[in-house]
Amino acid sequence: MVHANDLVEEFPLVDLDADALDAARILATRRLPGLVVTGELGRPYAILPASQVVRFVVPGYIQDDPSLAGVIDESVADRIAARLVGRTVRDLLPKNPVELPTVNADDTMLELAAVMARLRSPLVAVLDGDAIIGVVTASRLLGVLCGPL
Amino acid sequence: MVHANDLVEEFPLVDLDADALDAARILATRRLPGLVVTGELGRPYAILPASQVVRFVVPGYIQDDPSLAGVIDESVADRIAARLVGRTVRDLLPKNPVELPTVNADDTMLELAAVMARLRSPLVAVLDGDAIIGVVTASRLLGVLCGPL
Repeated sequence: MVHANDLVEEFPLVDLDADALDAARILATRRLPGLVVTGELGRPYAILPASQVVRFVVPGYIQDDPSLAGVIDESVADRIAARLVGRTVRDLLPKNPVELPTVNADDTMLELAAVMARLRSPLVAVLDGDAIIGVVTASRLLGVLCGPL
Repeated sequence: MVHANDLVEEFPLVDLDADALDAARILATRRLPGLVVTGELGRPYAILPASQVVRFVVPGYIQDDPSLAGVIDESVADRIAARLVGRTVRDLLPKNPVELPTVNADDTMLELAAVMARLRSPLVAVLDGDAIIGVVTASRLLGVLCGPL
């Protein structure tokens, strides 16, 4: 039997109190669609989608009317990242953050797949007790299910 | 000014009629959270999230009761990928597929960011006329907005 702990991948975790600009740069340099946010005692807290960070830095009046963006001075665009300075990951999360589904390290691969499928989640966190020991992505799981090329 | 066509990334596109198992293997080998699906004349059609492919291969009765998965014989798990054989990408898409937001090649970076933010999309397709010339991910955009490390 393949178990969840056989599948875990190296995946960056960021704390709720981590620097927002650092988190944005991890997303950018690792080309990730999102980060796993941990709270107290390293427990999984939420997913921070990269699109949520974009949402945070783009002023609300531009989101409401994207055509405005076309006529805004380049210098405004240059200052957009400044909105992240002095903020934490906690500030970036939406009010109702996307919860991260979890499985236990000794759950089977099929149990993990079932949780991922039911919740349409791109990620599942693998726990040993309360602490996160890693993450399994949908693409990793497909690789194991579909075998080598 | 930075325009959308300055930001486009190499990103795999799959046709609606492409083989489902090939699409799953592209997701797996490239470690992608999703693929861009194109329809007629190379026009963007939808996003195929990797989690949707997992959803397709995991039998409904296991999704409804993941605890069942723990007691299922390993050989059943081994046959899961067989559900993709003879299927196309069209078969995998949900009934109401996730639409891919689009911008024009000459739209500004800020217009692209505004569309991404408003629709909370991890990807935006860049069009020249009706045809897709590339994709910009939220992480790529953050890299440009937040500058080098």
